[in-house]
Amino acid sequence: MASIFTRIIQGEIPCYKVAEDDKYFAFLDINPVAKGHTLVIPKVEVDNLFDLDDETLAGLTLFAKRIALKIQDFAHCKKVAMVVLGLEVPHAHIHLIPMNSESDVDFKREKLKLSEEEFKAIAQAIRL
Amino acid sequence: MASIFTRIIQGEIPCYKVAEDDKYFAFLDINPVAKGHTLVIPKVEVDNLFDLDDETLAGLTLFAKRIALKIQDFAHCKKVAMVVLGLEVPHAHIHLIPMNSESDVDFKREKLKLSEEEFKAIAQAIRL
Repeated sequence: MASIFTRIIQGEIPCYKVAEDDKYFAFLDINPVAKGHTLVIPKVEVDNLFDLDDETLAGLTLFAKRIALKIQDFAHCKKVAMVVLGLEVPHAHIHLIPMNSESDVDFKREKLKLSEEEFKAIAQAIRL
Repeated sequence: MASIFTRIIQGEIPCYKVAEDDKYFAFLDINPVAKGHTLVIPKVEVDNLFDLDDETLAGLTLFAKRIALKIQDFAHCKKVAMVVLGLEVPHAHIHLIPMNSESDVDFKREKLKLSEEEFKAIAQAIRL
C-alpha cells in the first residue's frame, strides 16, 4: 500500500505544496511546531533516509537547502533546523523548522493551529 | 578565533574520532544522548549548514550516511536520527543519534556518562 506521503504526491490527499520536481516534493507539515515547518521527501518510497542511493540522497539535501533558505527569509529566524526521525511514517522525510532557540524544535510541544488562509500564505511565501 | 570544532579537527582539543577525510570529520558527542551519538562536520568553518556550497553539503550528507549505517549496525536501533540545530556552536554539524523511539532524540534529557573505555570501544566499533 502506498505511504501517506506517496498519496500526497499523487494528489489523493490534499496538501499545501511548497515545491516539486521530478524526484522530490515538499509541503507544509499540517501539524506545525512553527510557521514554515515543511516536510521534504523523495518521490521514491524508501523508509530509511540512509537507504536512499547516494545520488538521490545528495539531491534531496540540495532540494531541502533551497527551501530552507526560503524559510529563513520568510520566518526571519536565527536558523532553520533539519531533523530526520521517521519512526511514524515509513517514507523518508526531512523536517525543516524555523528556529530561534533550540527548544523551538520540540515535537512534543503543542502544535500550531493555523487557518487554511495562513497555510496558503506560508506555502506561497516559501514556494520555490 | 577558531571554533571549538576546528580546534578538535586540528587536534588541539582531544576527541574520540570516528572518521576523517580531506573535507569532513566525525567524532563522538562527549555528552551523548545515546551510545553512538556522533557529530559529523565539514572541515571548512561555516556556521549555517545551508550556507555550505552545494558540493560540500552533498558530500557531507554522504559522509554522514556512511557513518549512520555503521551506527545502525553497532546500536541495533530502529533508525539513526539526523538532527541539525546549531545555535550553540557556530560551525555546522550533524548529530547522528541511534533511536528506538522518537523520544530518544531529546537534547534536554540527562546525558549518558560513559567511561573513556566505553567511548573508545564505541568509536572503534563505528569507525569507517
